[in-house]
Amino acid sequence: MGGPEVERLIGLLAKLPGMGPRSARRAALKLLQQPEGRMLPLATALADAARAVKACGICGNLDSQDPCTVCSDPHRDRSVICVVEGVGDLWALERASVHRGVYHVLGGTLSALSGVGPEDLNVTSLLARVQAGGVTEVILALGATVDGATTAHWLTDRLRPSGVAVTRVAQGVPIGGALDVLDDGTLAAALRARRA
Amino acid sequence: MGGPEVERLIGLLAKLPGMGPRSARRAALKLLQQPEGRMLPLATALADAARAVKACGICGNLDSQDPCTVCSDPHRDRSVICVVEGVGDLWALERASVHRGVYHVLGGTLSALSGVGPEDLNVTSLLARVQAGGVTEVILALGATVDGATTAHWLTDRLRPSGVAVTRVAQGVPIGGALDVLDDGTLAAALRARRA
Repeated sequence: MGGPEVERLIGLLAKLPGMGPRSARRAALKLLQQPEGRMLPLATALADAARAVKACGICGNLDSQDPCTVCSDPHRDRSVICVVEGVGDLWALERASVHRGVYHVLGGTLSALSGVGPEDLNVTSLLARVQAGGVTEVILALGATVDGATTAHWLTDRLRPSGVAVTRVAQGVPIGGALDVLDDGTLAAALRARRA
Repeated sequence: MGGPEVERLIGLLAKLPGMGPRSARRAALKLLQQPEGRMLPLATALADAARAVKACGICGNLDSQDPCTVCSDPHRDRSVICVVEGVGDLWALERASVHRGVYHVLGGTLSALSGVGPEDLNVTSLLARVQAGGVTEVILALGATVDGATTAHWLTDRLRPSGVAVTRVAQGVPIGGALDVLDDGTLAAALRARRA
């Protein structure tokens, strides 16, 4: 319905994460009912962001400036690098305002199953940043998955010669989480890492 | 995160039906990772659709041609007009391919609570279409709500002098629906409208 332009728009909207064919149709209809107020501003915002945003040459963050807002902030502690899998993880940590150092985006995790090797990740640039000096700690904030753990182990081995402290984010019961709904792996990790 | 262009994009995406701040952020991130492959095509599709799509001068459907695809189709039965609340209802009926006549989009229902009166709906154009002749039946395909029923009653009164048959879509148990999960109103309507 609505002609080829609308079908094309619905097809593209349906590919967004969290959207499907039905919600894409609803969204398209909503937009079409306010072409000036909603649709053209969204088209402009998409084109603007696509033109403005690029990957930071230092850490790999996506930002409209290069170096990114974090890397160019004089108040950030450059001696602590937090290594994350993707830009989404970096944004989540920034939203929580829990890290005052800088970041490094790996761009994935090692995965034998998906054929992701060290050469597919931004490892060389991380080692170069550490070897350039001034770094005292590398925090590995990788997911608590098999691939995340493999990558963390492998990175720890690679970083050891440089002498920096390599730490990993804690695993355990999420804040606000009830014990009875947690999986066995999390319960075991939380019990093992118990503190006085 | 990501600069003002990204924040603006997230804000606009979050207003789409079915999206919220979190899913908008995820969608923006996904788009930013493929600016050429996903983001610019979506921007173009939005601008194209906004430019191409307009309301049909006859029925009120949204389409890239005016009169719309339905109204300009020579195979449609112009003697049966199906009256719907919104364009989304029209599209749903078209997807199901259950109506071979034409449509009329009211643009809402009468609602004392929201202050929607007859002058806010496309009623004059509907009466004009019926009075122009050639119409034998008007099907009221309005929602089974209080406002939908009020509007149907009111429209039936207005259409009676013209002599056309005014029918309403049946209410009852939805196909594939189990009786025990249905509300009392639907059960009562289904029982009342029982057939041999």
